[in-house]
Amino acid sequence: MTTKERIAEAGLRLFHERGYNGTSVQDIVVAAGVPKGSFYNHFSSKETLCLDAVERFSGNLALENLAGPTVSPVARIEEHLRHRVALAGRSDFARGCLLANLAAEIPAHSPVLSEAVHGHLQRWQAALAETLREAQDAGEVARTVPAEALADYLVSGFEGAMSRAKLVRDRQPLDAFLDVTFDTVLARPAA
Amino acid sequence: MTTKERIAEAGLRLFHERGYNGTSVQDIVVAAGVPKGSFYNHFSSKETLCLDAVERFSGNLALENLAGPTVSPVARIEEHLRHRVALAGRSDFARGCLLANLAAEIPAHSPVLSEAVHGHLQRWQAALAETLREAQDAGEVARTVPAEALADYLVSGFEGAMSRAKLVRDRQPLDAFLDVTFDTVLARPAA
Repeated sequence: MTTKERIAEAGLRLFHERGYNGTSVQDIVVAAGVPKGSFYNHFSSKETLCLDAVERFSGNLALENLAGPTVSPVARIEEHLRHRVALAGRSDFARGCLLANLAAEIPAHSPVLSEAVHGHLQRWQAALAETLREAQDAGEVARTVPAEALADYLVSGFEGAMSRAKLVRDRQPLDAFLDVTFDTVLARPAA
Repeated sequence: MTTKERIAEAGLRLFHERGYNGTSVQDIVVAAGVPKGSFYNHFSSKETLCLDAVERFSGNLALENLAGPTVSPVARIEEHLRHRVALAGRSDFARGCLLANLAAEIPAHSPVLSEAVHGHLQRWQAALAETLREAQDAGEVARTVPAEALADYLVSGFEGAMSRAKLVRDRQPLDAFLDVTFDTVLARPAA
């Protein structure tokens, strides 16, 4: 792995677990095992590195699976969200969602990071809305609420549950949110 | 206002808007307009002051209104949550919910604060569950999902929407979450 890559990976991990203000450049170079001076050869600031972390994290959300044609649209959404729960479980839920963490932490600190986080949440929401429209067209989900509002609700609820899972280091809040969602909001409408 | 009170109020405001690691003791004494030395006469550490902030914030959640006998249980829940939206609107949604912010930020930094935040979220959830049980007993809400799971879902979703409202400085994510909730999850069951 190149020095730049080591710094980027250590940054993503530390920002994810300890937050933006809870992570110093010093923490990052120590975790990456590189000399402190090398940091600024690759990144102009901690903010720039955190932007890189947001891109890396968001690139792993596998939004393309939401558009896959193989199963029903609702099943694809459920698979997508349960897959994210499984990924979070790999670090015992100690990290939460990087986007949710930064949404709660950085608005007063970095307009650039806020904008990036917002952009990725919107892209995720748009992909969910597209799949929900498919589900409504297929009669899988009632049209009571527009697909865009349902997607908005899903993002907020899932992100809130991720933060609570981080707090208790347990999947339970995520399971509760998904169970209510798929048993009521996204339940197949009565014929 | 006493010096202690000024420090406590400045601490609550700064932790709420800028987070725990984004706020220094220096920031707090400057905002409070008190000499730095006076801080440690009243609080043993930043962590102790933040615990005080969590107590103050949670004391203002008006959970007692959830038990009020005047209107329907679901109307009480909706009033309670819309009231919290109105409170957040007073600072243009720039602060989010202190409990949600800390849940996302401090698990890796302070077990004591994590425990306090968890305790208050659980108390809030228990008060919501009690009101939801009433609603189910009154036939206002379907029994498809247990009251405790519905309360869990409400806390996660509302907290997630609060963080997104903080990110965009707008009430829209909160309105979307509440609309979906009251139009579907907590809609009166078909007779």
